[in-house]
Amino acid sequence: MPSSTRDRLERRLDAIGRLDPQLRAFITPLPDQARAQADAVDAATRAGRSLGAAHGLIVAIKDCVDIGGVRGTAGSRFFEDRIAPRDSAVVARLRAAGAVLIGTTNLHEFCYGGTTQNAHWGACRNPWDPARIPGGSSGGSAVAVAAGMADAAIGTDTGGSIRGPAAINGIAGLRPSFGSVPATGTFPVSPPLDVPGPMARRALDLALIFAAIAGPDADDPLGDPHAPSEPLRSIGAGIAGLRIGIPRNHYFTDAPADIVAPVMAAARTLERLGARLRDVDVPGAEDAPANVQRLIFADAANLHRERLATAPELFDPLVRQRLQPGLELRGVDYAAALRWREGFRHGVDRLLATEATLVVSPAVATHVPRADDQRNVIAVTAAITKNSWGWAAAGVPAIAIPCGFSADGMPVGLQLAGPRRRDEIVLRAAFAYQQATDFHELLPPLHA
Amino acid sequence: MPSSTRDRLERRLDAIGRLDPQLRAFITPLPDQARAQADAVDAATRAGRSLGAAHGLIVAIKDCVDIGGVRGTAGSRFFEDRIAPRDSAVVARLRAAGAVLIGTTNLHEFCYGGTTQNAHWGACRNPWDPARIPGGSSGGSAVAVAAGMADAAIGTDTGGSIRGPAAINGIAGLRPSFGSVPATGTFPVSPPLDVPGPMARRALDLALIFAAIAGPDADDPLGDPHAPSEPLRSIGAGIAGLRIGIPRNHYFTDAPADIVAPVMAAARTLERLGARLRDVDVPGAEDAPANVQRLIFADAANLHRERLATAPELFDPLVRQRLQPGLELRGVDYAAALRWREGFRHGVDRLLATEATLVVSPAVATHVPRADDQRNVIAVTAAITKNSWGWAAAGVPAIAIPCGFSADGMPVGLQLAGPRRRDEIVLRAAFAYQQATDFHELLPPLHA
Repeated sequence: MPSSTRDRLERRLDAIGRLDPQLRAFITPLPDQARAQADAVDAATRAGRSLGAAHGLIVAIKDCVDIGGVRGTAGSRFFEDRIAPRDSAVVARLRAAGAVLIGTTNLHEFCYGGTTQNAHWGACRNPWDPARIPGGSSGGSAVAVAAGMADAAIGTDTGGSIRGPAAINGIAGLRPSFGSVPATGTFPVSPPLDVPGPMARRALDLALIFAAIAGPDADDPLGDPHAPSEPLRSIGAGIAGLRIGIPRNHYFTDAPADIVAPVMAAARTLERLGARLRDVDVPGAEDAPANVQRLIFADAANLHRERLATAPELFDPLVRQRLQPGLELRGVDYAAALRWREGFRHGVDRLLATEATLVVSPAVATHVPRADDQRNVIAVTAAITKNSWGWAAAGVPAIAIPCGFSADGMPVGLQLAGPRRRDEIVLRAAFAYQQATDFHELLPPLHA
Repeated sequence: MPSSTRDRLERRLDAIGRLDPQLRAFITPLPDQARAQADAVDAATRAGRSLGAAHGLIVAIKDCVDIGGVRGTAGSRFFEDRIAPRDSAVVARLRAAGAVLIGTTNLHEFCYGGTTQNAHWGACRNPWDPARIPGGSSGGSAVAVAAGMADAAIGTDTGGSIRGPAAINGIAGLRPSFGSVPATGTFPVSPPLDVPGPMARRALDLALIFAAIAGPDADDPLGDPHAPSEPLRSIGAGIAGLRIGIPRNHYFTDAPADIVAPVMAAARTLERLGARLRDVDVPGAEDAPANVQRLIFADAANLHRERLATAPELFDPLVRQRLQPGLELRGVDYAAALRWREGFRHGVDRLLATEATLVVSPAVATHVPRADDQRNVIAVTAAITKNSWGWAAAGVPAIAIPCGFSADGMPVGLQLAGPRRRDEIVLRAAFAYQQATDFHELLPPLHA
């Protein structure tokens, strides 16, 4: 008889007890609630019923995605005593689909940075090398999965906050098509860019969770009213004939050779699986970092205006410092960034409709920074997210999956971006890759 | 035998010759091109062929919508010698659908104001009283139709630039669903708000032109990829049972009694035709003027930045003055206006999906200003557009149709707003109203 969900949960809880004092992936573990959910799942299993696409998956939830009745802090001291009044849309759907919610995970304060060195809730560390950062802002979610403290996790991605931590912790993460997964009940950064999404080792689990959480929500002002793609139906259909673009510009420029090598090897693996590789240009990608940062900086500064004015001392000083450029940005520069975004999105749509269906790149085109990196958090975050801002601006789905290691032994992530509302193609390609390789099965030194 | 398109064209050209020295509706009449097009239409008619939905309609084109090979100035000295390199999408589609293009019309410089007192191309005047403004920015287009110099016209609407001039010149004008009519080849103000649309006496002509010009265009970055609604199919279906909301807030507040009276009489006419009236709230409408102006001001200031820096003297000083607040706006205030817009749009979508299908209001909730009004152009434009900004921000279709006169003898416009992508409902209600009334047939003192 296979082990029960409850048994598996106990092993995950055990791992939290042993590893989390060092890794600091969790803010609020929920052992009792999770045990009750696991027992309910096991009862359903025994009765021959599946509760849904996420049946029995043990999922950790980024602490900016509300679980009703549970402390929800957005990683900030401002909300250290806040109890979420009700489930976010994502959490409600996960519950309904049979997931077990093991707790809330650590994040960069207010999702506003890429290191998850959280001044209040703990400095989250990378299980491949605890002297290094786990990325962010969904750092705790990535570490929870990578270190075996959860089967899967929910992150949120504004400019790379799912894909970056997934890549550098050696797991998979999907930034879904913008608006396909409701942001209802999540703490925002920049609403026109924010999207929640799944993180797990296997693309198949991403597809299961995406199937559970995607779809219109009447309470989401920026939600896509269209039905989402159905990844499970075509997940195993293979990628014969799929055209995959390799960008000439931006994405590989200045990337370390030991990161380019595994990514190009992965592209050749996809070619062996039937895809056709071709060189492409992604027009305007060079300007993505500056423009997307402008939008995020001003949106976040607007969001936190009142808090900055009334209780600046409650912010992590580094977060407060990163909010400063947004307060100083001019409206005309915000407008110019929006014009860039409109043109870029249009160019990406055209590229993915004509020249290539997917585009590959390194998910993170730099070596994983050490936690004591002397650069400021703006520079570290910008280095990690160089390749992720653009797809966020375009609103298209993009996935990061493990594809090897750099010379320093740290995981390297392959990023695949695809057409808007066609998350199923991205997931199918990732699934095909994982059927042919085993990078997603390799475990970090710190693991349950 | 009915009069030929060519005969009708000659009468329109004649009217331009007689009236336009006073009304200044045109920048570049195109008598020779129009004659050739009219002759081609007549030849097709004789051969028993229709060229399309706009067959034989004599249409004037706002001078910010390119006609290939023709001077296109956007109403500015900067472009006084500019020849448009190719047809805008709207013009190409009108041509293909059998329209006759009689010339380009006057507008507020760079579409950036509501008076069409153009310092360079002439002070456009209202044919109901040439001491008064025709509204704007599509003032010339409205006057061309109202005074009998064209059957119909194309305008563009950012925050009210079609509906305002239509209303105060006693004709009809449709601001289509955002993105349904391509902006390709039009000079922008604020791309996320700009939309071209038809102006004519009759809602039926608006529907014919909408049918000709609406639909996806691969070159329009902000275009709606969905097929547009088909107004012609249901234009005569009537409005029995249609729920029409009368706003409790904003739209009638402080409106002069002699403007409210004809609008409420029009609402009762719609009720007699089978619609059901009910009071509604349009949440956030009070904040539309301030927020939409913020977005437009910063977008325009960004657009004209270079020109403001290098050749400020080429601007109309009043336009330059109205560009100033955009240069001074902070990025965080721009972000706050976007957040307002996202919430407002969501509230409007919900209102129109649940409580009422259409919402009525005065199109212009103030008496028509005199051309020598001593207020600045910001204040005059804001007064005229009080009721039009909100529907623009929501991206929903809104129509203005004539419904009577205020005590000073000037036309009053009824505005009907409807659900996104359901332009056909708005057109159908306007058509039903015009079948039951004759306000659209009344001609101004200055008329061909």
